[in-house]
Amino acid sequence: MPVETITWKNGKIRFIDQTLLPHKLKYVSTDDIHRLWRAIKRLEIRGAPAIGIAGALGVVIGIRTSKAKTFDRFLKDLQNASGYLGSSRPTAVNLFWALKRMERAAGDNRSKSVAEIKHILLKEALKIIDEDMTSCRRMARFGSRLVKHGSRILTHCNAGGLATADYGTALGVLFESKRQGKTIKVYVDETRPLLQGARLTTWELMREGIDTTLICDNMAASLMAKDGIDMILVGADRIAYNGDAANKIGTYNLAVLAKYHKIPFYVVAPISTFDFNIKSGKEIPIEERNGDEVRTVSGKLIAPKNVKVYNPSFDVTPHELITAIITEDGILRKPYENKRYE
Amino acid sequence: MPVETITWKNGKIRFIDQTLLPHKLKYVSTDDIHRLWRAIKRLEIRGAPAIGIAGALGVVIGIRTSKAKTFDRFLKDLQNASGYLGSSRPTAVNLFWALKRMERAAGDNRSKSVAEIKHILLKEALKIIDEDMTSCRRMARFGSRLVKHGSRILTHCNAGGLATADYGTALGVLFESKRQGKTIKVYVDETRPLLQGARLTTWELMREGIDTTLICDNMAASLMAKDGIDMILVGADRIAYNGDAANKIGTYNLAVLAKYHKIPFYVVAPISTFDFNIKSGKEIPIEERNGDEVRTVSGKLIAPKNVKVYNPSFDVTPHELITAIITEDGILRKPYENKRYE
Repeated sequence: MPVETITWKNGKIRFIDQTLLPHKLKYVSTDDIHRLWRAIKRLEIRGAPAIGIAGALGVVIGIRTSKAKTFDRFLKDLQNASGYLGSSRPTAVNLFWALKRMERAAGDNRSKSVAEIKHILLKEALKIIDEDMTSCRRMARFGSRLVKHGSRILTHCNAGGLATADYGTALGVLFESKRQGKTIKVYVDETRPLLQGARLTTWELMREGIDTTLICDNMAASLMAKDGIDMILVGADRIAYNGDAANKIGTYNLAVLAKYHKIPFYVVAPISTFDFNIKSGKEIPIEERNGDEVRTVSGKLIAPKNVKVYNPSFDVTPHELITAIITEDGILRKPYENKRYE
Repeated sequence: MPVETITWKNGKIRFIDQTLLPHKLKYVSTDDIHRLWRAIKRLEIRGAPAIGIAGALGVVIGIRTSKAKTFDRFLKDLQNASGYLGSSRPTAVNLFWALKRMERAAGDNRSKSVAEIKHILLKEALKIIDEDMTSCRRMARFGSRLVKHGSRILTHCNAGGLATADYGTALGVLFESKRQGKTIKVYVDETRPLLQGARLTTWELMREGIDTTLICDNMAASLMAKDGIDMILVGADRIAYNGDAANKIGTYNLAVLAKYHKIPFYVVAPISTFDFNIKSGKEIPIEERNGDEVRTVSGKLIAPKNVKVYNPSFDVTPHELITAIITEDGILRKPYENKRYE
């Protein structure tokens, strides 16, 4: 069973506070848009598809109290909520994709009453959740074609159920491969600074009984050199028109190592992660986060407290290092501009 | 002033417990060989040259209480102490080099009395410290020729004063460059799992007023991609005849990234780090350490407590990825078998 990362329940958004995992599985329910903003900012909710869902549901709670009588006035309230939610994290395009889709759903129904539009927006958000579930299953099936029995697979950060409404992107491929009876061995990068690999991915994989081994980020090359890795599977936060993919910091590092060691490197992401408005990865804004994320671990200082820090949350893997991109519509190969699905 | 990492004082070995840095600068004095063994095992004393010195001084305290009347009996006591010390950490060759040198010093004086030999062994250990100081200064001078004004330099783990009896190997080059008036900017990999970069290298560099920025190990590629690094300087724990170099886990990772980004990659190490008995890095034994080093940070659990872990302490960088090796006798270039110094 997938984890219930983010759902709509009794008129509130119910989500797992992922900062407490793997030690504590705590659900939070809220109808407060500020609480939700903080949850996205603090990475209580994280992962590109899950952030998109949070954005859509966030619009629903954001406009619920709108007293607007006219569409134009209502649209302004909606855009306020949407702009506010969009300011939480700049890199994941799924957030902006979901916010735009909510705005379009409102616009398409401008002749209806505000009460009716509010209802339509809730339905639209639930539809986004539904579509995410379906697309996770489809990506998993396409991706599992590439996984051989006995494969040793490396993954980075968390591209699992905790990043989506279902089984995840990269991890969905692993879950599906296991369901098909393939024996796999998965290595998980701990993924500093926020340790999503160590905290979340190991937890999800072990929960499904998959053979899981944790490594520090800097151990991947050593494993590859001794021929211990057959393939790499990661998620993405934004993919440019040419296939350049932004994902959690350290992904590009792995892609360079994969090329040197001739190991296939796959990105698993729904079409909503593509940003067709930007030609290449150079245009993707990279969020830089607070240096204390690096200076501390679980609140403990691990370095001089006044040391300078460089803390980009993402890096961009150029398309030439990506063997294929696995989407819900099929597997894309280079040149990615062609969008020809296998 | 270099830190006093390990010295001989009032008949005891005095060393810094490096596991407590940067929060606490604590000196430990001991004449107990078991305490010293534990200090090496636990990385209170670490860094190849410093471990060599600890080994030599360890022999001195190990044979001090020997009641042997004959040389043969004394040699047995010495070999017991030496074998015990050698079992603390398998990878750094400087340890075995120092232990062998102490044994040879005893053998060369077998006709003398046991009391005299004990005195000679202390003198030999102090000579090793002295030579390490001299060789640090010489490496620093040779290495500084390669550092340009304005260079942005990346280093890994700790190859500083805390790893030697003086200013260090790779960091010695930085200290000397600064002394010569060159402006440099240094990026430091935090170096998981034991965070020697975050804890020790930042502390040493900031103590000398060098512009220091801490990054997570997986951020190096991102920095290189945006043309932020001019050169990489690391130490080594054992170098094979062909130039393959074992160093802290993550070093090989950097070397692959450096090649991809066309950044020069330098190893700084004294000749005692060369193991001429082994042809290539394949023969270097790699220490695997306890998985709890990865599962925890500063005693705090950061992953499921029963997750499997792969935790090699070192990796091997093949000679073809090393631009040059900086030693106390000069700069070596490929092919390293030639041992032609620049």
